[in-house]
Amino acid sequence: MASPTATREAPPGAAGHRSTARVREILGWYSADNPGSKANLARMLNHGTLAGTGRMVILPVDQGFEHGPARSFAPNPPAYDPRYHFELAIEAGCNAYAAPLGFLEAGAAEFAGEIPLILKLNNHDVLHDEKDPFSAVTGSVGDALRLGCAAIGFTIYPGSSMASRMYEQIRGLAEEAKRAGLAVVVWSYPRGSGLSKAGETAIDVVAYGAQIAAQLGAHVLKVKLPSDQIEQEVARKAYEKHAIPIGTLAERVRHVVQSSFDGRRIVIFSGGAKKDDDEEIVNEARGIRDGGGFGSIIGRNSFQRRRPDALKLLRRIMAVYAGETP
Amino acid sequence: MASPTATREAPPGAAGHRSTARVREILGWYSADNPGSKANLARMLNHGTLAGTGRMVILPVDQGFEHGPARSFAPNPPAYDPRYHFELAIEAGCNAYAAPLGFLEAGAAEFAGEIPLILKLNNHDVLHDEKDPFSAVTGSVGDALRLGCAAIGFTIYPGSSMASRMYEQIRGLAEEAKRAGLAVVVWSYPRGSGLSKAGETAIDVVAYGAQIAAQLGAHVLKVKLPSDQIEQEVARKAYEKHAIPIGTLAERVRHVVQSSFDGRRIVIFSGGAKKDDDEEIVNEARGIRDGGGFGSIIGRNSFQRRRPDALKLLRRIMAVYAGETP
Amino acid sequence: MASPTATREAPPGAAGHRSTARVREILGWYSADNPGSKANLARMLNHGTLAGTGRMVILPVDQGFEHGPARSFAPNPPAYDPRYHFELAIEAGCNAYAAPLGFLEAGAAEFAGEIPLILKLNNHDVLHDEKDPFSAVTGSVGDALRLGCAAIGFTIYPGSSMASRMYEQIRGLAEEAKRAGLAVVVWSYPRGSGLSKAGETAIDVVAYGAQIAAQLGAHVLKVKLPSDQIEQEVARKAYEKHAIPIGTLAERVRHVVQSSFDGRRIVIFSGGAKKDDDEEIVNEARGIRDGGGFGSIIGRNSFQRRRPDALKLLRRIMAVYAGETP
Amino acid sequence: MASPTATREAPPGAAGHRSTARVREILGWYSADNPGSKANLARMLNHGTLAGTGRMVILPVDQGFEHGPARSFAPNPPAYDPRYHFELAIEAGCNAYAAPLGFLEAGAAEFAGEIPLILKLNNHDVLHDEKDPFSAVTGSVGDALRLGCAAIGFTIYPGSSMASRMYEQIRGLAEEAKRAGLAVVVWSYPRGSGLSKAGETAIDVVAYGAQIAAQLGAHVLKVKLPSDQIEQEVARKAYEKHAIPIGTLAERVRHVVQSSFDGRRIVIFSGGAKKDDDEEIVNEARGIRDGGGFGSIIGRNSFQRRRPDALKLLRRIMAVYAGETP
Amino acid sequence: MASPTATREAPPGAAGHRSTARVREILGWYSADNPGSKANLARMLNHGTLAGTGRMVILPVDQGFEHGPARSFAPNPPAYDPRYHFELAIEAGCNAYAAPLGFLEAGAAEFAGEIPLILKLNNHDVLHDEKDPFSAVTGSVGDALRLGCAAIGFTIYPGSSMASRMYEQIRGLAEEAKRAGLAVVVWSYPRGSGLSKAGETAIDVVAYGAQIAAQLGAHVLKVKLPSDQIEQEVARKAYEKHAIPIGTLAERVRHVVQSSFDGRRIVIFSGGAKKDDDEEIVNEARGIRDGGGFGSIIGRNSFQRRRPDALKLLRRIMAVYAGETP
Repeated sequence: MASPTATREAPPGAAGHRSTARVREILGWYSADNPGSKANLARMLNHGTLAGTGRMVILPVDQGFEHGPARSFAPNPPAYDPRYHFELAIEAGCNAYAAPLGFLEAGAAEFAGEIPLILKLNNHDVLHDEKDPFSAVTGSVGDALRLGCAAIGFTIYPGSSMASRMYEQIRGLAEEAKRAGLAVVVWSYPRGSGLSKAGETAIDVVAYGAQIAAQLGAHVLKVKLPSDQIEQEVARKAYEKHAIPIGTLAERVRHVVQSSFDGRRIVIFSGGAKKDDDEEIVNEARGIRDGGGFGSIIGRNSFQRRRPDALKLLRRIMAVYAGETP
Repeated sequence: MASPTATREAPPGAAGHRSTARVREILGWYSADNPGSKANLARMLNHGTLAGTGRMVILPVDQGFEHGPARSFAPNPPAYDPRYHFELAIEAGCNAYAAPLGFLEAGAAEFAGEIPLILKLNNHDVLHDEKDPFSAVTGSVGDALRLGCAAIGFTIYPGSSMASRMYEQIRGLAEEAKRAGLAVVVWSYPRGSGLSKAGETAIDVVAYGAQIAAQLGAHVLKVKLPSDQIEQEVARKAYEKHAIPIGTLAERVRHVVQSSFDGRRIVIFSGGAKKDDDEEIVNEARGIRDGGGFGSIIGRNSFQRRRPDALKLLRRIMAVYAGETP
Repeated sequence: MASPTATREAPPGAAGHRSTARVREILGWYSADNPGSKANLARMLNHGTLAGTGRMVILPVDQGFEHGPARSFAPNPPAYDPRYHFELAIEAGCNAYAAPLGFLEAGAAEFAGEIPLILKLNNHDVLHDEKDPFSAVTGSVGDALRLGCAAIGFTIYPGSSMASRMYEQIRGLAEEAKRAGLAVVVWSYPRGSGLSKAGETAIDVVAYGAQIAAQLGAHVLKVKLPSDQIEQEVARKAYEKHAIPIGTLAERVRHVVQSSFDGRRIVIFSGGAKKDDDEEIVNEARGIRDGGGFGSIIGRNSFQRRRPDALKLLRRIMAVYAGETP
Repeated sequence: MASPTATREAPPGAAGHRSTARVREILGWYSADNPGSKANLARMLNHGTLAGTGRMVILPVDQGFEHGPARSFAPNPPAYDPRYHFELAIEAGCNAYAAPLGFLEAGAAEFAGEIPLILKLNNHDVLHDEKDPFSAVTGSVGDALRLGCAAIGFTIYPGSSMASRMYEQIRGLAEEAKRAGLAVVVWSYPRGSGLSKAGETAIDVVAYGAQIAAQLGAHVLKVKLPSDQIEQEVARKAYEKHAIPIGTLAERVRHVVQSSFDGRRIVIFSGGAKKDDDEEIVNEARGIRDGGGFGSIIGRNSFQRRRPDALKLLRRIMAVYAGETP
Repeated sequence: MASPTATREAPPGAAGHRSTARVREILGWYSADNPGSKANLARMLNHGTLAGTGRMVILPVDQGFEHGPARSFAPNPPAYDPRYHFELAIEAGCNAYAAPLGFLEAGAAEFAGEIPLILKLNNHDVLHDEKDPFSAVTGSVGDALRLGCAAIGFTIYPGSSMASRMYEQIRGLAEEAKRAGLAVVVWSYPRGSGLSKAGETAIDVVAYGAQIAAQLGAHVLKVKLPSDQIEQEVARKAYEKHAIPIGTLAERVRHVVQSSFDGRRIVIFSGGAKKDDDEEIVNEARGIRDGGGFGSIIGRNSFQRRRPDALKLLRRIMAVYAGETP
C-alpha cells in the first residue's frame, strides 16, 4: 500500500494545508468521537488569530440573558445590536463566538461561515433569586444544526441542589450532539447551597467542577479562574498531604488542567467581571498560559469596552497565547 | 442575466403590490427564519389599517381564561360571544387577533382568512392563587395550523420560580412553530416571588423581560408599559452610571426597544387594565410611537368598551401610529 | 346571547372587511375541512385583481421542469430568472403563483407574504419518453409549510397505467396537507395508453378527470379546456341518451363544472400551449366564464410573452372574469 | 440604533475577515435556506486556492465504485489508498473533496476539518449492465453529519426510465439535509433509454438536466460539458427560432448557466474522461470561466495523473478561474 | 344545481331501548372485536327502517369514480350534487351510506350524525383499461375517523393478478380500522385474467370470494348475486359430488351465506346494473331474504331513478326484508 507523503504543514486558514501537529495531537485525545465532532473541534482550533496553536480565545455573549440588557450593554451601547458581537469576534480573530438562540438567530445568516458558532443551550436569569440555581434549556441540537454551529454549549452548576437535573440534561443533549458531529462545550460553574460564596472559585471546587464536566463527556471545559482557597474540608487533607502547589495562578491552572484528564481535555478559563485594567487581564492570560491552560473566554471584558479598546485587549491576550511579544 | 424590474410598491392589501420598503426592512431582521415564518410576519404587518407601516395594533382576548367571564365580559355583554372579537378586530382594522384555543375554534371557520390569528398556547387562571405563577399549555402548533393561524403566542413570567419551565416549553414550541413556518409572539410579563408588585413594570425589569423573550427566539415581543422605577439594585448602578434616560414614557420605550436587539425585533406594548379616559390611552400610544415602539396590543380597553366606543378608540390609536391627525 | 352585527362587506384586500358573500358561499362547500384549509382557500380567493369575486387567475410555471429551459424561457429570456415569475404574478394581480420546489425556494423569502404560493409536489420531464406517464414527487408538505405556501399542487394522469400510484401519492399528501391547514390543488390531465391523443381533451374524459380529482378530495381542480369529442364508447351512450349539451365551449365548461360535485368545487381551466392571438385566449375566458367556470391558469401564454404584453393579456382576462369591459 | 461598522473584507482563510462581496452575493441566492446550509456553502466557497472568488474546483473520487478499482487506480497506484485523495485535495487547494461512504470513512478522522467533504449518497457500479441506470443509495444524512461533511452529493440520470425514483430519493434526502444545515450538490447526468449516446451531452439535454437539478432544490449543480448537438426535436425549434448561441464552449456554458435559474445557482462542470493533454483541459476551464461557469469538478484527470502532474494541472486550472496568469 | 328537498325531521331511533335480541346475536359473532367495532356495527344495524331486524339496505355511490360522472349521474341530474345522496339515504331509511372521500367530505359536516357513513378506501376508474384490475387507495382510516364514519369499505378483486396486493392493503387498513373501533366492509368482486366473464358471478366463485373476504377479517361482506354456473373445474366435482343445491337464487344465496362462516358474518348482495323493472329487483330481494342473506346494497338502481321512484323502490325492498307487505 501506498505510504502517502505528508503534505506541507503550515498555519491553517491558508488554503491547502494540513492541521498543525499540535492540533492533530489535541484531536487525538478525542479518539472515541466521530469525525464530525473532531472536524468541528478542528474548525474552532483552526480559526482566527490563534489558529493552529492549540490555544483558543472565545467570545461569549449571554450576559443579556444572564444579567439583563442594561447591565450588559449600556457600558458600550453598540453591543445592544446582535450583529456587533459577530463582527467583534471576527475582527478580533477569535476562535469562536458563543451566544443564546436569539442572538445567534439574529446574525447567523448574515455572517454565515465567517466564525465558528457555539449555541448556548441553557440560560439563567436573575429576576428570580434562588440559592440553588437552575438554567432553563433554551435551544436544541436541531437549532445548532440549522444555525450552522460548530458546537453546543451548556452550563452546569455543581453544588446546586438542581445539579443532577442539569447533568442529566447535558447528558442527553451531548449524546445527540455527538451523534450529529457537533462539539460539546461545558461551562462548569460551581454554585448553590452546597458551597460558600468564596468556595465557588476555590481551587478544589474549580478542579472538581472541571473533572465533573470532563466525566460528563465535554470536549471543551470552561471554568472560572481558581483562587488559592480550599472549600471542602475533606479535600483539604489531600491538598495538604500531597502538597499540591496552588500558590500561584499558573500552579492552580496547572492543577485544574491536570484534573481535566491530565491535560487531555481542552480547558479554558473565563475572565469574569469587567476589569478596567487591561494589564490585569493580560497577566491572567500569562498565568493561564504558563499553567498549561488552553485559553480564555472573554465576554464582558471585550464587549463592554469600546470596540477599539476591546480589539486592542483581545489582540494582547492572543499575543500572550501565541507566545509573541504583543 | 436578467435584472428584474421592481414592481410597484404601494400600501399592501391592495392587489398586485410588493410589501413596502419598511416591511421588507423588518423582515430582513429575521434572516435565520424560513420564508414561511417571514410570510406570516408579513401577513400581520400587511393587514389592516396599519398595513405596510411597520406598526401593529393587535386585539388580544384571553381575559376570559385569565380573569373569568364576568370580570372580562360583563362590562360589554356582546363580548361573551366569541364571534364578537373576530368582528371587532376586523372592523377596527387590527393587524391580528390573539386568543386561546376555545375562542379561536369558535370563529376560525366563520372568519376564515379575514384576519391573521395568533393562538395563545398557554393560559393561566386565578381560581388557584399562587405567588409564582405558571401558565398551562392549552394549545399546540398542530392546533395553530389546523385553525389557520399566522402565529403562536406564549406568555412567560420572568421572576417566577417556575420561569425556567416556561422557557423550556416555549423553546420546544417555538422550534416546532418555526419549522412549520409560523411566527412566534411572546408575552413577557415579569411576575412572581422574585419581584415586588411595582417591580413588575419597573423599567429595568421590563427591558430585561424583553431581552429574555428575544433571546428565546421570539419574533414579536409583547411587554407592559414601563414605569420609571428601578427594581434590581444591581441594575440601578448601570442606569445611573450610564445615565440611561428613563424620565419620559418615550425614553423608556426607546430603552426597551434598544434592549430588544437594538430595535431589530418587533416590540409592542400592552395597554393594561381598562381606563375610562380615551385620551390617556391615546397619549400612551404617542409615547410608544415617539420612543420607536412598534405598536400596541389593546385588549380590555377595546372589548370592554361598547363597540362604537372601542372602534373610535382603536381608530384614534391607529391614527397615532400612522402618523396622521386622528 | 349577543347577535353580533355584521361588519361591512367590501372587496377584500382593503383592511377591515369581511370576505364577500360569494367567497363565503364558496368556502361553505368545504364544510369538512378545518379552518386552516378554508383560510388558505380564502387567501387565494381574496388576493389580487379578482379578490372577492370567487374567480381566480393563477400563474403556473413548471414548464422548466416539464419541457426544459430553452423551450420554456427562450421566448422571453428574463423568465429564466425565478424572481421574474413572482413579480409577474404580483404585478398582474394573480390570485396565486404555482411552481416546483426550486423555483419557489429561489424567491419565497424575497417575496414573503406578497402572493399566495402553491408548491407543485410532483413533476415530470420529457427526457425519457413513455406512453404511460408518471410524475415524480419532488416536494413535501413540510416544504410547503416552510416556504409559506397556501396550497400544495399535484398532477394526476388518469388514463396512465401509473394512475393508481399517483392517486395513492396525492391521497397521502392531501391528508397531510389538510391536517396542516393547507389547500389542495389537483391538476387532472388524462393521458396515457388508455386514451387516444384527441381523447385527452374529449369532453367525457375531461369531465371524468374532474370527477376523479374531486373524489380524491381536491379543493381546487385544474383541467384542460374540453373539446366536443367523446372518447369512451360506454360514455357516448349516456351523452346521447340524455342529450347533454356539449356544442359550445360554455356548454362543455358547464358540464365539467356540473361533473365537479354540481359546481360545489372550484374548477379552473388551463390555457394550454402558447397562442399568438390574444383575442383567442380572451374568448376562451369568456367561454369559461359563461359556462360557470371559476377561472384560468395561464402559464405559457403569460411568461412566454414580453412582460408588458403578458400584463396586458392577463388584465384583459381578469376583466372578463370580473364582468367588466376591459 | 447602532449602525455597526463593516469589518475588513479580505480573502478568507485568513483570520478575522468577512466573506468577500462575491461570496455574500452568491449566498444571497439561497434566501430560503437556513444559516446552516448557507454556512456550509460558505465553507466550500471560502476554502482553498479559490477561496472568496466565487469559483470552485472540487475533487470527486467515486470511480472505484462506478468503474472498478483497476480502471480507476492502476494508472496511478498510490490512489488505491483513500488517504491519497484527501491529501491531493488539500495540497492542491481544492474547495472540497467528494467521495462515497467508504472512502470518506477511511480518512475523515485523520483529516478532520482540513477540507470540506461531500458525501456521495448514491452510487452505481457496472457489474450489472442496464440500459436505464439507477444508482443505489449508499449513505445517509446521518452519515454525512457524523463524518463532518459540508454537503451531501447525489446523482440523477434524467432520461433513464428510473429517473422518477431517483428524483424522489433526492427529494427526501435534500429535505433532511437542509433541515440539518447541510448543502446539497446534485450531479445531473442525463443517460438512459430516452436518449442517444451523443444526446447525453447535447446542449439542450445538459441545460435541461441542470434545470431539473435546480428545480429539485440543489444548491450546487454538476453537469457535463455540453456539445453543440441538439438531441430533442421539440427543443431544436426553440434553439433555432430564438437563435440561442451555442457555437463555442463559452456560449454553451453561458446557456447552461442561464438555464440554472439565470445564473442564481452554482453550476460546475465535470472534466470527464482522462485526457493526456493538459492544455486541452486548461482550455476547457477557460471556456467555462468565459461562459460564466462557476468551476470544475476534476476527478480522473487529477488522481489518474502522478501526484506532481496532478498538482501542476490543478494549479493551472485554478489560475484560470482566479483570472491570473498561471 | 339541485335544490335538495328537506327530509323529514324526527327523533332518531327510539330512545331508551336495548338492541334487539337479533342484533345482539349478530354482534356476538364478532367476539374478538373491541367494543368500538361492535358499537359501529350496532349503529348500522340499529339505524333506519330496518333497525333491529338484523337486515341492512345500504346506499353506495362510487360510480362517479368508477364509471365517470355522465354515465353515473346524467340519468338523474340532481345526483351530481353530493348532498343528494346523503338525503336519499336518510329519507329512504337506509342503514348506511357508502362513498369515496370527496363525496363524503362534501356532506359529512352538513349531515353530521344523521346516517352511518362508510368511507370507501379504494377506487378504480375506467380511463385506463386493464385485464387485471387494481383499485387505488384513495382514503385512510384517519379520514374515516375525522369524517365520523362507522366503517371503512374496501374492494378486492379475487382473480386479478393484483389480488395479493389488494389483500395486503385491506389487511393493514382493517387492522388499523379495528384498533380505532371502526367496522370493516369488504366488497369482494372476483375479476381479472384468472376468470371468464361469466365466471365472475359463478356460484363457486362468488362463494369463494365471500370466504376470502371473511378470512381477511371483514365484518360485512358485499358480493354479487351468484348465477348457477360453475367456473372452476376443480370445484365442479365438489358441487356435484355433494349435490349442493344451487338451482334457485335462494339456494345460491344460502350457499354463499354458509360459505361466510356458516352465516356468522353479515353478507349483503349488490343489485348490479340499473334495471328498469322494479319488480325484478324486488324479487331478487325476496330471493336474498329467503336464502338467509342479510340485505342489499342498492346503488345505481336508486340514485339513477328519479327521487320519488327511488324512494318507492327502496321502501318496497325494505318491506321485503322486514317481512311485511309493502
